[in-house]
Amino acid sequence: LQSRLPKVGTTIFTVMSALATERGAVNLGQGFPDFDCDPRIVDAVAQAMREGANQYPPMAGILPLRQAISSKVEAIYGHRYDADTEITVTAGATQGLLTSILAIVHPGDEVIVIEPNYDSYLPAIELAGGIPVFVTLEAPDYALPFDRLAAAITPRTRAIMINTPHNPTGTIWREADMRKLEAIVRDTQVLIVSDEVYEHMVYDGQRHESVSRYPELAARSLVVSSFGKTYHVTGWKIGYVAAPRALTAEFRKVHQFNVFTVNTPMQVGLARFMADPAPYLELPAFYQRKRDHFRAGLEHTRFRMLPSDGTYFQCVDYSAISDLPEAEFAKWLTTEIGVAAIPVSAFYHEPHESGIVRFCFAKKESTLDEALGRLAKL
Amino acid sequence: LQSRLPKVGTTIFTVMSALATERGAVNLGQGFPDFDCDPRIVDAVAQAMREGANQYPPMAGILPLRQAISSKVEAIYGHRYDADTEITVTAGATQGLLTSILAIVHPGDEVIVIEPNYDSYLPAIELAGGIPVFVTLEAPDYALPFDRLAAAITPRTRAIMINTPHNPTGTIWREADMRKLEAIVRDTQVLIVSDEVYEHMVYDGQRHESVSRYPELAARSLVVSSFGKTYHVTGWKIGYVAAPRALTAEFRKVHQFNVFTVNTPMQVGLARFMADPAPYLELPAFYQRKRDHFRAGLEHTRFRMLPSDGTYFQCVDYSAISDLPEAEFAKWLTTEIGVAAIPVSAFYHEPHESGIVRFCFAKKESTLDEALGRLAKL
Ligand SMILES: CSCCC(=O)C(=O)O
Ligand SMILES: CSCCC(=O)C(=O)O
Repeated sequence: LQSRLPKVGTTIFTVMSALATERGAVNLGQGFPDFDCDPRIVDAVAQAMREGANQYPPMAGILPLRQAISSKVEAIYGHRYDADTEITVTAGATQGLLTSILAIVHPGDEVIVIEPNYDSYLPAIELAGGIPVFVTLEAPDYALPFDRLAAAITPRTRAIMINTPHNPTGTIWREADMRKLEAIVRDTQVLIVSDEVYEHMVYDGQRHESVSRYPELAARSLVVSSFGKTYHVTGWKIGYVAAPRALTAEFRKVHQFNVFTVNTPMQVGLARFMADPAPYLELPAFYQRKRDHFRAGLEHTRFRMLPSDGTYFQCVDYSAISDLPEAEFAKWLTTEIGVAAIPVSAFYHEPHESGIVRFCFAKKESTLDEALGRLAKL
Repeated sequence: LQSRLPKVGTTIFTVMSALATERGAVNLGQGFPDFDCDPRIVDAVAQAMREGANQYPPMAGILPLRQAISSKVEAIYGHRYDADTEITVTAGATQGLLTSILAIVHPGDEVIVIEPNYDSYLPAIELAGGIPVFVTLEAPDYALPFDRLAAAITPRTRAIMINTPHNPTGTIWREADMRKLEAIVRDTQVLIVSDEVYEHMVYDGQRHESVSRYPELAARSLVVSSFGKTYHVTGWKIGYVAAPRALTAEFRKVHQFNVFTVNTPMQVGLARFMADPAPYLELPAFYQRKRDHFRAGLEHTRFRMLPSDGTYFQCVDYSAISDLPEAEFAKWLTTEIGVAAIPVSAFYHEPHESGIVRFCFAKKESTLDEALGRLAKL
């Protein structure tokens, strides 16, 4: 059997988590919290199951959840997505991304990928028969080369994939960036797939620049978000995609034959829990405390910190410690020092070494302290 | 935007359920129970959430669930799938089907579809760039024309999709059928995607013919099953795919970039609940009682019943009542008589009228009686 995805192995997140478990390392690799979610959200789901919300929901998701999403997005970003025709609940953001790509990319279409990029983008484009076109960001600032982005657009460009706050670098797009993107796509038919799963993790009083804030961009975008990251339930695998009606119609054609629909009791529970905005309004401060705590500790190590303006990731330059390639350094750090990290090179499509690894700080303070103690020995 | 799936509309199940709700009809259309699941399974999931099973599980599913599946399949069908490398938990059977097709079908490959067929098969093949080749079954017996199946195989055939117990017709494959299939594919490279989501709904003491019973078939098959149907939780969207190691490796390459993984607390809860075999061992008797009750009632109507050897569906010939095309008859029945049904024509790729609609009998006796009362007036 000839592989449809010959270049694909097991994701780096799975590999590093397995190694961390095997070696008893503190796992700052794969991005997930090691603390629990709000017990009220668990109660809400348990209650939904007891009420009998256990059969198929509507294909696009239950209306109360889509309405809650619509209201929330409007309150924060000022753009109103119609709950009925512009929002679809997905089995997590990854499913939202693959489904978006399958729905809009025809064989031979080009899709611009700004790398380093999340590792599901390329297999998704490949399965759709699309051709990835890369715009590469470089450490340490990972600044967006808008001239090269503009130059990458051809008559065959179907879409640009953007991601802010950005995994793995922790950079964020600012208003000026969004205006430049707006100008670049203005006279084109190019669509945007906007991965905004870390939308509620932006620090130092800065704001998240959702494409939803920019009507010209919103009109051509599929916005992908995640409840798992916002509510500390990465294992619930629930997210959504918001897009204008015509794009949503195409999205749903694929969605209904991919997963058909998404876990009913989780939807019912989340719809009720979302009525309270406090959890996501308090999230930036919650994670900023963790970031600041982790960064304060890293001051006492030989790692050089890069900025972390958003996401729950902190990238560090280890060139003062080792000249191993990133993947090898990450393995060494896991097995010998007992702290798992993710090599940023895993987010580039070709060998690309910058001497940088990514730590996840979505952890209890005690976990971060244990890791910091080990890292300080280097 | 040019559609990737130009022929796709909203699924017939969604359309008919919406119409049923709007008209207050008894919904015997879309296949789902109107009774609740075992409260112990709800408790098991609630317990898992309370224990903190809320973050990412392993990509292929939690090992205890894969082991429980492996043991169960071995106990029933005598074939041992390795829990580690041959079983993957999916976000429902539909996701298992699309992922299977995307993983094995290359653009230009032919895939044999035995119609009438479940409506996700064709969009899945289309998204993979495959070419469906049809073998058509005809009412009232829907007998498998194995000569035509054999003749449909060409050097470009990648896979045959089979489905037993069969939706929508309620027919089942028997050992002789499996032997014929075995002979047909023996000297070929053809793979099999075996949709067995109704595996525990086979009546009158007959047995389910899983491809897993037949080593030669199992060696080339992806077996798709569903917990939702077996445990009365269609809204939980959880199922699995079992396949030999090499096929599972390709399946997982796509799976990890489709949904990455599946709802953790549902997996933990199901793994515990599966320890008790009674629920699925008792399922044939449970549904046979409903089938027999429904059929006894249909005797007092002018519908002519087809056999229902498996699934929770009962097909009926309405030609003594109306000569409307099936889709129109189903709508008329829903709006005027107050009983929703599914036109079997919706499962054929071209207009195909046999004067037959499908009822779902996975309903409380009182629901079936209400529907029967309305149908008897015809
Ligand atoms: C889906 S596992 C990876 C989690 C994640 O988003 C990351 O670590 O980058
Ligand atoms: C996924 S909705 C359809 C349910 C079903 O399998 C059917 O009614 O045939």
